[in-house]
Amino acid sequence: MQNKTEPRTLSGFMELLPEEQILFDQIKETIESTYKTYGFLPLDTPIIELSEVLLAKAGGETEKQMYRFNKGDTDLSLRFDLTVPLAKYVAKNYGNLSFPFRRYQIGKVYRGERTQKGRFREFYQCDIDIIGDENLSINNDAELPSIIYTIFKKLGFDDFTISINNRKILNGLFQSIGQKENSSEILRVIDKIEKIGKEAVIQELRNLDVKEDQIQKIIEFIEIEGDTKEKIQKLKNLNLQNEVYNEGVEELEQVIKKVRLFGVPEANFKIDLTIARGLDYYTGTVYETFLNQYRELGSICSGGRYENLAQYYTDKKLPGVGVSIGLTRLFYKLNELKLINVKQKSISKILIIPMIEDLEIPIKLATKLRNLNISTQIYLNDKKLKAKLKYADKLEIPYVILIGEDEIKENKVKLKNMKTGEEKKIDLDEVKIIEELE
Amino acid sequence: MQNKTEPRTLSGFMELLPEEQILFDQIKETIESTYKTYGFLPLDTPIIELSEVLLAKAGGETEKQMYRFNKGDTDLSLRFDLTVPLAKYVAKNYGNLSFPFRRYQIGKVYRGERTQKGRFREFYQCDIDIIGDENLSINNDAELPSIIYTIFKKLGFDDFTISINNRKILNGLFQSIGQKENSSEILRVIDKIEKIGKEAVIQELRNLDVKEDQIQKIIEFIEIEGDTKEKIQKLKNLNLQNEVYNEGVEELEQVIKKVRLFGVPEANFKIDLTIARGLDYYTGTVYETFLNQYRELGSICSGGRYENLAQYYTDKKLPGVGVSIGLTRLFYKLNELKLINVKQKSISKILIIPMIEDLEIPIKLATKLRNLNISTQIYLNDKKLKAKLKYADKLEIPYVILIGEDEIKENKVKLKNMKTGEEKKIDLDEVKIIEELE
Repeated sequence: MQNKTEPRTLSGFMELLPEEQILFDQIKETIESTYKTYGFLPLDTPIIELSEVLLAKAGGETEKQMYRFNKGDTDLSLRFDLTVPLAKYVAKNYGNLSFPFRRYQIGKVYRGERTQKGRFREFYQCDIDIIGDENLSINNDAELPSIIYTIFKKLGFDDFTISINNRKILNGLFQSIGQKENSSEILRVIDKIEKIGKEAVIQELRNLDVKEDQIQKIIEFIEIEGDTKEKIQKLKNLNLQNEVYNEGVEELEQVIKKVRLFGVPEANFKIDLTIARGLDYYTGTVYETFLNQYRELGSICSGGRYENLAQYYTDKKLPGVGVSIGLTRLFYKLNELKLINVKQKSISKILIIPMIEDLEIPIKLATKLRNLNISTQIYLNDKKLKAKLKYADKLEIPYVILIGEDEIKENKVKLKNMKTGEEKKIDLDEVKIIEELE
Repeated sequence: MQNKTEPRTLSGFMELLPEEQILFDQIKETIESTYKTYGFLPLDTPIIELSEVLLAKAGGETEKQMYRFNKGDTDLSLRFDLTVPLAKYVAKNYGNLSFPFRRYQIGKVYRGERTQKGRFREFYQCDIDIIGDENLSINNDAELPSIIYTIFKKLGFDDFTISINNRKILNGLFQSIGQKENSSEILRVIDKIEKIGKEAVIQELRNLDVKEDQIQKIIEFIEIEGDTKEKIQKLKNLNLQNEVYNEGVEELEQVIKKVRLFGVPEANFKIDLTIARGLDYYTGTVYETFLNQYRELGSICSGGRYENLAQYYTDKKLPGVGVSIGLTRLFYKLNELKLINVKQKSISKILIIPMIEDLEIPIKLATKLRNLNISTQIYLNDKKLKAKLKYADKLEIPYVILIGEDEIKENKVKLKNMKTGEEKKIDLDEVKIIEELE
């Protein structure tokens, strides 16, 4: 006998059992259908691109994680996000698109990170972006949280918070205390306050040679408390006399006001002055989303406003705003925490079990049910009745229709509710059967 | 000013404009929802696998076309079909699956073929397979054509034919004329008869040292004419006294008989004794599907029965039957032939255009419509009315709702049908609006 190859799946790559896949697909479908209700257009870009295209904006950490290889003479890479391909796409197809260009994309991206529990090398991102031509109203920044809100409500969550901030506020603050040059480093430190605490942040700021009075200002700033209205007022009270800062506060006030209009309840959003989202990409509004009882999950939907989507490919100024859900990780974590549960093990609603040789009646019935869009399987293999019922049981198919000699003589079928065990003879008439199912 | 990178997409990689993507997604959705009605379970396997796993069955042509590379010390490849990953999956998860295991998978696969018009290096395959444990009834072979039939009918086609054959008939024939050893080569030649014609086939058979009386038998066989019933009769009349042959004829007769029961009209299937589908993979029933007026497209949905899905990974005997639609190529060809056409350029059914500062009413209306699952966009940017209407026009959004001072005073909105140009003031009441849309 021939040697067998071990049927392994790479670590860091999610491969689900069918019942988990059904659940995964349902969540994906909820996200996609919500994106569609908001009028976003679909996009599907290649997974492989020229490395030169993906690396137009020089890489850093991302570049190291890329799956990069040669095919013939061509230097190729797998996409590591959906934003860079979007930028390429918009630059390439500029003349054929209508702006504001609203697109969604749900697809796999690749990052060769060190594998660890809950981290994936292949994972789905579910992105939406609204791209303007030259300019894009701040109103769009206020619409996105309502989309995040709708999705997580539909997924059955109530206790989540969309944190909103504006990068200009932080940038203006740093300018005003003469720390513009160090702003990236300072942001990196501030970003960690949730994880490492205030004292450690102060220490790290000292390590960056930030002066004590500046540190005090920064801490004073990130400790601003209160409801959204109070926070906005306190930001204004700081009276920083910095144009960028004031613009940021003004924008944040606008966004917050309109987020309410867009129907996000007070309980589901807040201003969080500590979030910065990446270090040089975002330029205005930024978002993160947290399940309040599971902050340890990190942000489950993030994004923000950027000044210029495609500057590495085109001279056109294309400002945009977008958010992304890292679906694979989210699914893994929700599943681990048992916040989502497999609800169905099969797609089929009905299993037809023929107990006769002639398949004419069973097949005709199946065809009718399928035409009514009821997922139906016929048990087509030679097995004992017990094995056939066990199959329905294992797959948790809710109904079984048994068709035997006796039933056919009476022009009836036997409908069995697999949950209750209840059996009923009913007319061999799809309308009657449908009524029974409902 | 910084140098720009040219925003290129690799040749052989499909990247569609949004309106084409909408159409592509609709076709994909038709395929997927049909698969679901037949109770197939979803599967989503990684695009990257260990090369050793994908190449468990030694490669040939496929191996040369693979995207293969190292990441660290690991020898990786991109999947070149969905069948090998399925085999791995079933072998790996055998204990957690219920058999017959019916799964569908729609995903991208990769083949670094020489690029040419209509050939893709990244393309979608849409697969279904039914896998048995130890055995699988021939009834399943009869069910698959009904799924192919349903899909192409739903896609709007009438004049297509599902060609059905059985590999055992061919194998038995070769055995009986003492050409078992050469059967692969002979099949390869026969497979070309449509393309190169009878005379060229005879010549190529001579080149293979097939004797004249054997050639005559082969030609006699592949020239069997008539309706399905006649063909079966003629196959029996050949009286080959070969067990494999007789088994094949018997199976084919069964499948043909039941394909009818499964509701495929006589006009949409036939026996075609020349199709063989690959050379060593399939072992029984084989299928190809042709648009009769566009035979040059080649088969648009193919597959067949195999004895043992996962023999390279496990000792379990797992016979199966499946078909696959090469969606990317199909879409490209149908589009090129104008057999499918972009029907909508937007997802949105309604564009709300606020002509007032205060967005409260426009947003509330949008939220209500979205909750009713009507895809709605609000024009959120500062533009002249003309530009806003042009946006709706370019995206072919069917309805525009204009909300201005006057309308609000009357508690009304203006609904404009963008196709007819008709404008109507109606109550600001989503029910009234819905009625108007229908």
